[in-house]
Amino acid sequence: MKSSAKDRTLRWKRSLYRIIFEADTFKGKLFDEILMLCIFASVVVVMCDSVKSINAVYGRQLYAAEWAFTILFSVEYILRLFCVPRRVRYATSVFGIVDLLAVLPTYLSLIFPGSQYLIVIRILRVLRIFRVLKLVQFIGEAGVLMQSLLASARKIIVFLFTVLTLVIIFGSLIYLIEGEANGFTSIPRSIYWAIVTLTTVGYGDLSPKTGLGQFFASLIMILGYSIIAVPSGIVTVEMSNVFGRQKSRRICLECMKGGHERDALHCKYCGKELSDQVAEER
Amino acid sequence: MKSSAKDRTLRWKRSLYRIIFEADTFKGKLFDEILMLCIFASVVVVMCDSVKSINAVYGRQLYAAEWAFTILFSVEYILRLFCVPRRVRYATSVFGIVDLLAVLPTYLSLIFPGSQYLIVIRILRVLRIFRVLKLVQFIGEAGVLMQSLLASARKIIVFLFTVLTLVIIFGSLIYLIEGEANGFTSIPRSIYWAIVTLTTVGYGDLSPKTGLGQFFASLIMILGYSIIAVPSGIVTVEMSNVFGRQKSRRICLECMKGGHERDALHCKYCGKELSDQVAEER
Amino acid sequence: MKSSAKDRTLRWKRSLYRIIFEADTFKGKLFDEILMLCIFASVVVVMCDSVKSINAVYGRQLYAAEWAFTILFSVEYILRLFCVPRRVRYATSVFGIVDLLAVLPTYLSLIFPGSQYLIVIRILRVLRIFRVLKLVQFIGEAGVLMQSLLASARKIIVFLFTVLTLVIIFGSLIYLIEGEANGFTSIPRSIYWAIVTLTTVGYGDLSPKTGLGQFFASLIMILGYSIIAVPSGIVTVEMSNVFGRQKSRRICLECMKGGHERDALHCKYCGKELSDQVAEER
Amino acid sequence: MKSSAKDRTLRWKRSLYRIIFEADTFKGKLFDEILMLCIFASVVVVMCDSVKSINAVYGRQLYAAEWAFTILFSVEYILRLFCVPRRVRYATSVFGIVDLLAVLPTYLSLIFPGSQYLIVIRILRVLRIFRVLKLVQFIGEAGVLMQSLLASARKIIVFLFTVLTLVIIFGSLIYLIEGEANGFTSIPRSIYWAIVTLTTVGYGDLSPKTGLGQFFASLIMILGYSIIAVPSGIVTVEMSNVFGRQKSRRICLECMKGGHERDALHCKYCGKELSDQVAEER
Repeated sequence: MKSSAKDRTLRWKRSLYRIIFEADTFKGKLFDEILMLCIFASVVVVMCDSVKSINAVYGRQLYAAEWAFTILFSVEYILRLFCVPRRVRYATSVFGIVDLLAVLPTYLSLIFPGSQYLIVIRILRVLRIFRVLKLVQFIGEAGVLMQSLLASARKIIVFLFTVLTLVIIFGSLIYLIEGEANGFTSIPRSIYWAIVTLTTVGYGDLSPKTGLGQFFASLIMILGYSIIAVPSGIVTVEMSNVFGRQKSRRICLECMKGGHERDALHCKYCGKELSDQVAEER
Repeated sequence: MKSSAKDRTLRWKRSLYRIIFEADTFKGKLFDEILMLCIFASVVVVMCDSVKSINAVYGRQLYAAEWAFTILFSVEYILRLFCVPRRVRYATSVFGIVDLLAVLPTYLSLIFPGSQYLIVIRILRVLRIFRVLKLVQFIGEAGVLMQSLLASARKIIVFLFTVLTLVIIFGSLIYLIEGEANGFTSIPRSIYWAIVTLTTVGYGDLSPKTGLGQFFASLIMILGYSIIAVPSGIVTVEMSNVFGRQKSRRICLECMKGGHERDALHCKYCGKELSDQVAEER
Repeated sequence: MKSSAKDRTLRWKRSLYRIIFEADTFKGKLFDEILMLCIFASVVVVMCDSVKSINAVYGRQLYAAEWAFTILFSVEYILRLFCVPRRVRYATSVFGIVDLLAVLPTYLSLIFPGSQYLIVIRILRVLRIFRVLKLVQFIGEAGVLMQSLLASARKIIVFLFTVLTLVIIFGSLIYLIEGEANGFTSIPRSIYWAIVTLTTVGYGDLSPKTGLGQFFASLIMILGYSIIAVPSGIVTVEMSNVFGRQKSRRICLECMKGGHERDALHCKYCGKELSDQVAEER
Repeated sequence: MKSSAKDRTLRWKRSLYRIIFEADTFKGKLFDEILMLCIFASVVVVMCDSVKSINAVYGRQLYAAEWAFTILFSVEYILRLFCVPRRVRYATSVFGIVDLLAVLPTYLSLIFPGSQYLIVIRILRVLRIFRVLKLVQFIGEAGVLMQSLLASARKIIVFLFTVLTLVIIFGSLIYLIEGEANGFTSIPRSIYWAIVTLTTVGYGDLSPKTGLGQFFASLIMILGYSIIAVPSGIVTVEMSNVFGRQKSRRICLECMKGGHERDALHCKYCGKELSDQVAEER
């Protein structure tokens, strides 16, 4: 008899893995769909729990539901750890960390009251939804966006660094101009105001009262209104490159020219058929 | 005699159809122009009706006018249903539904007071104006814009999904940081604040009071200020593609397919040369 | 003797024309520079006049200065009308109308007190500064920008029309949701709120108080945050075309291909020299 | 013996120069790293000093630290002046001026109390960080951004000039419409409001109260919401040019000139064929 106890455990592990981690089989898809629902429900429960009028009436039920979801997710996390072949790799992956963070706050709330609200980090688990719903194309789109942002990362860091330097100087100047009498009670608070102004948010909790302060604020606003063009420009140009590259990965074997559109069947330069060549779609 | 009663009804239906649905004949154009005026007038009536000082003086006249317009539009809707050849198709089309919604609220207001203000949905009927004024080119432009937005729809959905995930997490964190004493009374309300901040609207009805909260808010603002570049980039690149494709409306005489790029020498579908054909520049 | 009285008047007119309308001669340039100074000074006078604390002390002097500038500009306007060869054309040109509007408000203020503040329209006269300072290139740039905006005008009109339709509907819905108790006292006022929100201005003078209202407002904000990409995309693509066209107006006489950069001396396709051909710069 | 006193001084100067101005040697790098830390620390000290609650407890220590940093930076400045070969050139360079401005405010605070907060200008010295951390690529990126902004400078100046003209006129109109009763107490203050509105900042410290004022404000908002597309478009197009030029860094072996477009077969300057040369893709 070859079927030993170890073999059976292995086979059981594999089928568990297929259900929990994959979404190809019926059971796997069902598991993922129920999981999505549970995640959404648990986030809604936490939100409702924080609303006083709801808490006053359904406080106990919500508390019970929160613990039920947490225990459910804890069991799921342990099962994931159990059935995954490479445990450390999963535990240190983005999804593995999010899975852990999604249960910790409730346990922490026993020690630090209030921390249970951190549970909303569970919403990050919903990012799995793209895989569940077989929205592969959406993952592709997300990848393209991510690629564009990474390509422009260095330029955006330079931009943000410049913005930070500017708001520190602007904040200090407005602190000197307006002073504590008008609400600018410290430099950090004035820097906060400068950020609120430069980003065109404009709460109005702090606003310049003196003529000079308003003149200076006007300069910051016009600057903020203009330089928003910089990240826009950076990202647009990089996206244009990334999207374009996606399109042009087909080369005509006859004239070796690239840049053909996705739906092209013939080379647009020499007329040779393109269809029999493998399109290297990303 | 061939002209039976049925024939006469049919002929009458046809001429009615030409007046109500088309704008080619003098009568048809006149009908549409009067309709536009009535729609505008009825929307203005509803708006005025909601202004207390006007309502106090002209309340009864406005009420009468509203009912007059509603009955007029009801008759028009019934005539449309009567003379259109394919009734179900019209009734379930976008314009058919808008036409119905444009009369319902007044009748509903008999049962639910206040619902008559929903009548402003009538303004959607004004979208017909482009057809009336023979602004075919504007319809073309609207089509190009719509095409660009559809082309970028998936990327924008991924972007919005990311934004929603972010504001849920930011909202919960600020709820923990600021607490109920500073106005952040619940997580949903804090998420509302996070949206107000990330989108750079910044009402100021809720604003962080503590130093940590202001620091955290600054991060959200700078993030919101930067990532507005993402939808800008997506739409710009897609528009650039759609506009470009439109401009190069070259049609292959062999397979009658269009959409060739400007520098194309051969049809990308069938391989026939394109160079000897006149490019139909828009 | 050929020099008759009529001739002398004509010659005098011509030299006056050269001084007032042109900026090539020393006198013409001096005249324009003094004029610019006077315009700036008169706008500053009007601004100062509106500030109470300044008005209390220098009210009479400012009043005198305003009248002095107005009489000066009136004389200038009459001289312009006198020496220009085609009077009606000047009087109905943009600059002619602005020149007239720049003096009218002070005279009107004798009949309607307060209208003298409209005098700031004089600032429009400063637009002549580009000509005065020989900033021809700036005029070119302004032209390119204007061309891009005109090219995208139809698309932007469709966009604005859509935005207007949306804010009317959103305004009415928020009026029903929030009601008069929360400050949304009429539909026009609610539409004003919808515009404040959609454009991400966010004064905060009106803001939703109910949960449903805040949810609905969040949707408008995210919409406004996203669709700002539409005008950005339109203008960027059109500018790209207009700027590009500027570059590519040189055609190689050998291979008849265009698209050469401004500093190109040789055709980039066949290597033939381009330098001897007239570049059709706009 | 050749090693005279003068020689020794010269050698000492050189090694000092290498430590202070360069970051290639171990000592030079260490010096720069300590300097960065001191700059950050001194800026944090100034910020903390402005926060009342911190000042009340650690006021004296912070005061002492501030003077310590100032004396340190003064000594550093004098050493820089001493060891640099071309003193005037350094003293009038951007970094030289920033280095001087970074110490002046503390000394000035002896005469004008409060001016010590200007010390935050020291943060500008941190811009050296890119050199210190050998982030040469970041300097490259910053250069590309700067190049794009310079290329679009003239167009942006025309745009800003137009915006300024608009806000002066809008500000005066709202001053007439709303009047002093609603907070629009002077034209400069009303211009400040127009800037707050057009740039979509929207503090809400001033907001229109009358119906006409709100209608007029709506127009400004929609204008501001639309014309933000203009700087976006300008910068995007210029960046696209600058980035594109950078990417196609192909150098002609004949005339050693670069900047050829991607599809170029011949050098656009001398006409020599380019096709057989390897394109140096970044």
